Amino acid sequence: MSGAAAAAAPYRAKTTEQVANFLERIAVEIESLGDSLVQTAHQESGLPLSRLQNERERTINGVRIFAELARDGSWVSARIDIGDPSRKPAPKPDLRTMLIPIGPVVVFGASNFPLAISVAGNDTVGALAAGCPVVIKAHPAHPGTSDLVAGAIGRAVIACGMPDSVFSMVHGAGYEVGLALVRHPDTKAVAFTGSLAGGRALFDAAAARPEPIPVYAEMGSINPVILLPGALAAGAEQIGAAYIRSVTMGVGQFCTNPGLVLGVASQPLERFVAAAARAAENAAPATMLHRRIRDAFMKGVTRNEATPGVKIEARSRVDAQSARTEAPVVIFSTTASVLEAEAHLSEEVFGPTSAIVKCRDRAELEHAIGQLTGHLTASVHGTPQDLEEYSDLIAMLENKVGRMIFNGFGTGLEVCSALHHGGPYPATTDSHFTSIGQGGIFRFARPLCYQNFPQEALPEALRDRNTKNIWRLVDGRMTQEHIGS
Amino acid sequence: MSGAAAAAAPYRAKTTEQVANFLERIAVEIESLGDSLVQTAHQESGLPLSRLQNERERTINGVRIFAELARDGSWVSARIDIGDPSRKPAPKPDLRTMLIPIGPVVVFGASNFPLAISVAGNDTVGALAAGCPVVIKAHPAHPGTSDLVAGAIGRAVIACGMPDSVFSMVHGAGYEVGLALVRHPDTKAVAFTGSLAGGRALFDAAAARPEPIPVYAEMGSINPVILLPGALAAGAEQIGAAYIRSVTMGVGQFCTNPGLVLGVASQPLERFVAAAARAAENAAPATMLHRRIRDAFMKGVTRNEATPGVKIEARSRVDAQSARTEAPVVIFSTTASVLEAEAHLSEEVFGPTSAIVKCRDRAELEHAIGQLTGHLTASVHGTPQDLEEYSDLIAMLENKVGRMIFNGFGTGLEVCSALHHGGPYPATTDSHFTSIGQGGIFRFARPLCYQNFPQEALPEALRDRNTKNIWRLVDGRMTQEHIGS
Repeated sequence: MSGAAAAAAPYRAKTTEQVANFLERIAVEIESLGDSLVQTAHQESGLPLSRLQNERERTINGVRIFAELARDGSWVSARIDIGDPSRKPAPKPDLRTMLIPIGPVVVFGASNFPLAISVAGNDTVGALAAGCPVVIKAHPAHPGTSDLVAGAIGRAVIACGMPDSVFSMVHGAGYEVGLALVRHPDTKAVAFTGSLAGGRALFDAAAARPEPIPVYAEMGSINPVILLPGALAAGAEQIGAAYIRSVTMGVGQFCTNPGLVLGVASQPLERFVAAAARAAENAAPATMLHRRIRDAFMKGVTRNEATPGVKIEARSRVDAQSARTEAPVVIFSTTASVLEAEAHLSEEVFGPTSAIVKCRDRAELEHAIGQLTGHLTASVHGTPQDLEEYSDLIAMLENKVGRMIFNGFGTGLEVCSALHHGGPYPATTDSHFTSIGQGGIFRFARPLCYQNFPQEALPEALRDRNTKNIWRLVDGRMTQEHIGS
Repeated sequence: MSGAAAAAAPYRAKTTEQVANFLERIAVEIESLGDSLVQTAHQESGLPLSRLQNERERTINGVRIFAELARDGSWVSARIDIGDPSRKPAPKPDLRTMLIPIGPVVVFGASNFPLAISVAGNDTVGALAAGCPVVIKAHPAHPGTSDLVAGAIGRAVIACGMPDSVFSMVHGAGYEVGLALVRHPDTKAVAFTGSLAGGRALFDAAAARPEPIPVYAEMGSINPVILLPGALAAGAEQIGAAYIRSVTMGVGQFCTNPGLVLGVASQPLERFVAAAARAAENAAPATMLHRRIRDAFMKGVTRNEATPGVKIEARSRVDAQSARTEAPVVIFSTTASVLEAEAHLSEEVFGPTSAIVKCRDRAELEHAIGQLTGHLTASVHGTPQDLEEYSDLIAMLENKVGRMIFNGFGTGLEVCSALHHGGPYPATTDSHFTSIGQGGIFRFARPLCYQNFPQEALPEALRDRNTKNIWRLVDGRMTQEHIGS
């Protein structure tokens, strides 16, 4: 960490153009790794090559998106209130605020996206774009993939004349290496994507420091799906089939996996269940990321099976091969009272499983929604009339999640400015910030205000002449104009 | 807290216009309290009437500023990426994100601003403007003042038809009442202005909850002042006199009080010290807020006096009357090595005292700046040439503080959009947010994303028709336009 700390000042002194070029060079260097990157990731993760090819594209695009954000420059959220030395009774000070880098950041690679949420993922690139040095804690499930990407970033550091330690990576299988990084006094922020237990341990360690620091942990969730009557009447079968496509996507190893479905018991709900069961039975078992994840999945499934009041609605017809680290698709059903009584049914079982909760009536559905904790997403299947009729339930759901999806599922993220991938605890440890998309840059920046500074001593973004043509709030008005003549 | 939780949904359902009217009514109701408010605050705090009259104006203006912010509506930071169902290979989802209220908020009144940072202070009004119910923990040093303001807000609640428990207040002298509020499961955020010990205790309690919540604690600091050679050569005497005016403002009971001055030993620095000493000796002792604060002040001063290597440069010539809870002005001087060796010299002594550190040379000044922890502000006295010559030291300082002041002092805040009143720990527990000014609203809001929602089910701020004419980021472009035709 002390290397990263030493790099902070020289890196912050780089121009936005230099930072943007650096990020673009990272994208080029990752591209230059060619097929060896996808092959290595395939061997280490067992993920299909086609999925990894897509993930590589998403990763490279992500790097370029942040290069563009850095070059554009408006993300610094400049706010200027022009001074008035002649104001009575007291002069009005000149105040100019912008976001500056928060300092050296530790990023933990995630297991389930060995490229897109790992060494060159949103957090790394967002932190670099914000002007922060980054130390990666590589995920032990894909060390070779991590080394390849770290090598690419290292070559970009040299090619662009960036400070040596602006980027570095450490390996380590246990908790201790990661905790030591979080506890290091030079660390100023931590980003993590993974389990609730892992994220909470980092959060607790950071909060207990003499100088507490923010931990942005995205810890997954079970992403409730609400089925409203109009939608069920119109297309129970289609929704059931789409649900299983979402449950099985990436072998269920997405933090947006729909783990819990809530609906009022009815004939159409039974048609939904039947369609989902057919699709689940026909879904072939598939290889999970690694054995520890598969073991945890099977343990969770076995626990649900053994829970009184929980019924197995469907299971992949083909047997899952343990030797191939395969997981079957397993769909449960239960009642709202069992859901409330058995707390573990509301906990994530990472993998292709989900539970359908048949509520007695609207009141029980409302009660079940009220009991939900924080989640990344909630899906609402309904007609526009349903949305109106159930608007109070929708409003309750809004307070529980970071993203609401209408007539769809949360799997499959669109990386863009308007994406928010976050949510109230335990989905994340900080509901203000997103872990995916351009908004991720705000995790790694904080405001600094300059009072009465002369023009030439101000950062470029705050000078009267708006040379980079960025958007600024000047005397309360959004504008790209220069100040004065 | 459960009352506040029950008020959350109906309060969030109010229009921005209704919220703005409610805030304006609060301002009117506080105005209607007339002189009794200032009289009561005077009796409880011992602060001069003129100061309290100004503080009342600032408080009422602050409420109106947030009414305007709520009515304007752009603060929700709407971001829209328009969907494209025909995109290949996969349709592009429609994503629309805005800030929504974080939930019920607990606000702790501060002792040193019985009006402006108390019951109707920036945090209360910011939270109400964001759409959050507020529970106030009244400061025990001004219960009558708190009751008056709470009564005014209560009348506004009734007059505007707001939910009963959108605002409430509890009294209590010990820590336990406050901690119970922080630990209550319905509390979603906490705002506090006060001591490091108090703020840290709340932060620790919130981090230890089953569901951790953010604590925005502003805990004051000693606000380093750097004197550069050019400025000293040009006006050591004027800076010395201005320094004592800042140290004694509000009997030193401001969190922006300049508690530490750093400069390189020189003839001009001695002239600064001499001028400051003259002004300090002539400054009359004045009454502090209450006896506990005065006792803590005298204890801190006595400790510094007894520290080897610390010299008293000046003390109010007139004796301070303990019976009147008066504090003398006391100015110390010391060396950089003593500052580093004696940790308590870097801790805030709340009141009219400050220490001048005479560094041997530039290297020692740089080392001393490197040792600083987080502060709300830093002041730099220099010429434009000084700023250029010492730009590396200025950059170091920027990483330590929330506001940099050129040729001035941090006391006296201008409440406006560009103000940032915050800073790295231990100045605050969350460097992302300000405790004063419009930006304070962001403490109490978090993003929520809507995917593929029909127009009529979207909040007004996210619909195609931008009826409120707010600024939105649409497909990456800032605009006030409608979407589509």
